[in-house]
Amino acid sequence: MKTGILNRYYADLPESYLFSTIARKIDSYRQSHPGADIIRLGIGDVTRPLAPAVIAAMHRATEEMADVAGFRGYGPEQGYEFLREAVARGEFAPRGVDLAADEIFISDGSKCDVANFQELFDRKCRVAIPDPVYPVYLDSNIMAGRKNIVFMPAHAGNGFQPEIPKHSVDLIYLCSPNNPTGTVLTRETLTAFVDYALRHGALILFDAAYAAYIQDDSLVHSIYEIPGARACAVEFRSFSKTAGFTGVRCAVTVVPHELAELRRMWLRRQTTKFNGVNYIVQRAAEAVYSPEGREQIRATIAGYMANAAAIRRGLTEGGWTVCGGEHAPYIWWELPEQETSFAFFDRLLETCEVVGTPGSGFGSCGEGYFRLTAFGEPDSTRRALERIRTRLK
Amino acid sequence: MKTGILNRYYADLPESYLFSTIARKIDSYRQSHPGADIIRLGIGDVTRPLAPAVIAAMHRATEEMADVAGFRGYGPEQGYEFLREAVARGEFAPRGVDLAADEIFISDGSKCDVANFQELFDRKCRVAIPDPVYPVYLDSNIMAGRKNIVFMPAHAGNGFQPEIPKHSVDLIYLCSPNNPTGTVLTRETLTAFVDYALRHGALILFDAAYAAYIQDDSLVHSIYEIPGARACAVEFRSFSKTAGFTGVRCAVTVVPHELAELRRMWLRRQTTKFNGVNYIVQRAAEAVYSPEGREQIRATIAGYMANAAAIRRGLTEGGWTVCGGEHAPYIWWELPEQETSFAFFDRLLETCEVVGTPGSGFGSCGEGYFRLTAFGEPDSTRRALERIRTRLK
Repeated sequence: MKTGILNRYYADLPESYLFSTIARKIDSYRQSHPGADIIRLGIGDVTRPLAPAVIAAMHRATEEMADVAGFRGYGPEQGYEFLREAVARGEFAPRGVDLAADEIFISDGSKCDVANFQELFDRKCRVAIPDPVYPVYLDSNIMAGRKNIVFMPAHAGNGFQPEIPKHSVDLIYLCSPNNPTGTVLTRETLTAFVDYALRHGALILFDAAYAAYIQDDSLVHSIYEIPGARACAVEFRSFSKTAGFTGVRCAVTVVPHELAELRRMWLRRQTTKFNGVNYIVQRAAEAVYSPEGREQIRATIAGYMANAAAIRRGLTEGGWTVCGGEHAPYIWWELPEQETSFAFFDRLLETCEVVGTPGSGFGSCGEGYFRLTAFGEPDSTRRALERIRTRLK
Repeated sequence: MKTGILNRYYADLPESYLFSTIARKIDSYRQSHPGADIIRLGIGDVTRPLAPAVIAAMHRATEEMADVAGFRGYGPEQGYEFLREAVARGEFAPRGVDLAADEIFISDGSKCDVANFQELFDRKCRVAIPDPVYPVYLDSNIMAGRKNIVFMPAHAGNGFQPEIPKHSVDLIYLCSPNNPTGTVLTRETLTAFVDYALRHGALILFDAAYAAYIQDDSLVHSIYEIPGARACAVEFRSFSKTAGFTGVRCAVTVVPHELAELRRMWLRRQTTKFNGVNYIVQRAAEAVYSPEGREQIRATIAGYMANAAAIRRGLTEGGWTVCGGEHAPYIWWELPEQETSFAFFDRLLETCEVVGTPGSGFGSCGEGYFRLTAFGEPDSTRRALERIRTRLK
């Protein structure tokens, strides 16, 4: 095959996807240290089993699929009405955000939606991306050949609130609670971004995959809590971290009626290039909003947040500076020494057999930081912190 | 939001996805004819429940997800090794095709993979698409802004074997058994295409979603049965029609080692923009290859093929000309009158309350034809044919 016909923009990407690189490093350590007791506080993957209400819904829906009367083939590409309505009622209404079912699109993951949504835009449009942030926003735009990308630095100096671009941009990615810093964007920050977007005719892509971890009701959970946002923002939600669906796959994208042309295009994109989410999974996601489902999920998140508190406490008492971990499953650890975050990754693995994520993998402002996650088991999280405090200094 | 930043190529698409248009027509008929007994031989969606072996695997895997020891979060984006190996052994080895597990990528659907794969190529590359064919190949290329598209006509005059392009092209889509004509590409046709691709440095995108319906072992099931194909072809397989997974979502894409750069790029694309298939679904797909699974699936397909035979017989005895339906679930019905296939759709719905798919929805060579599918229940298929024979003439 002629290689000249290939998408040349792939060559502009970093060599491999961050988390694949890390997985390879761990594999290689395991091979050279058989029997190593590695504790993974790295990749943001949940560890607690699915909620009993979710499991029960799955078994029930599986039985439906075993019977000709209950069997379901292709569903609507944008998701079954029962789930879209459950999301509107269960996810948004409690925040005072009123959404119609046809503003809600169900998919198999926020990573897919966040990565695919840029397809609806011209290759020449100007993109603003927080730094540091989840690498998919940048990588998917590089793959599409976008060159006009500005970064919005977030650091201790601005309370990890990304700076509004000085010049005019067309697309603005925001992530709150932020992956990796664990910071929630303030109402003031979000209001300023919405005002900016309305003034410049820009679109905000608001990734709220971790909204369920916000512990303070006065903080903003959905971009639509900000006046004017319906005319300038889409929002991404996920069941992955909310309900432990990382291996189940279900997510939500909201495109409001006010963005009529964009809504039509996303529907066209999804009906043409996607075939809907597994029926059983949609019933499972619906069960997340049942009274028992809610209660069970709340308890699981409380467990993760207890880990987050333990990590914060352990590092702080060890003399380190951290942020995050109060309304997010991520703790952003300021590295004390003149050491790259990738070098620190290796040292932490070798000294403590603890895995985290190097901050520089999330952007240049992430250098000098390290991400730990609260998704471990309480006991292994506690042991990891013990090793860090006793072996690292 | 400024509309000038939108992807302008969407405006080049037909107004809506073919099957969405049809669904709207049926809805509107239902509303104006309450109690109508509509028989759907239109969209290619299965109707038989999942195989007992698949259901049992789903229940088992669901239980694993209920327990901390068995719980699985993110899996490999390209699919679990157990499924990739089962596919190599169960799907390809019996045809004498030897694939390594890392040449196999698991996804949530062939529609997605077939639509996404073009992202790996330059916008300027030249694309050849059969006419008539499944509309996703064309639509996904239009969305990406490709203008250099040639069609390969397939009609009664060439035995529905698409004509090899006269000039040099870079990407060639093939679909065998074909949707909508139900025709299997011959060994001679496929050998000629592989030779062409090798000579021109082109890539063949071989869609074999209906391979399980081929009844004659001497016909080609996989493009890799053709010498040289590993250096010039990717292949798409699906559990949708093989095992009734249209509402479950699982598919396979093969990128051979010989296409090393392309394989790396597809892995990069999937790790960046996709997050793997549901673990329970992968266990369900594995069960398709168990001895009981195979037997149950064979029986279901035999049932659909009995419908296909009944449709062929009914139409032929009624004096109509058909092709397909012998190694595919699709019957391609030559319309006798000077009537567009969309007008015929309306007439068939109004006269017989039977739904099919207008041939012109699959390309200009589809005009004058109509697609019926064998996925109905035997009784309703029989009743549909009775209505056609008694009411249509």
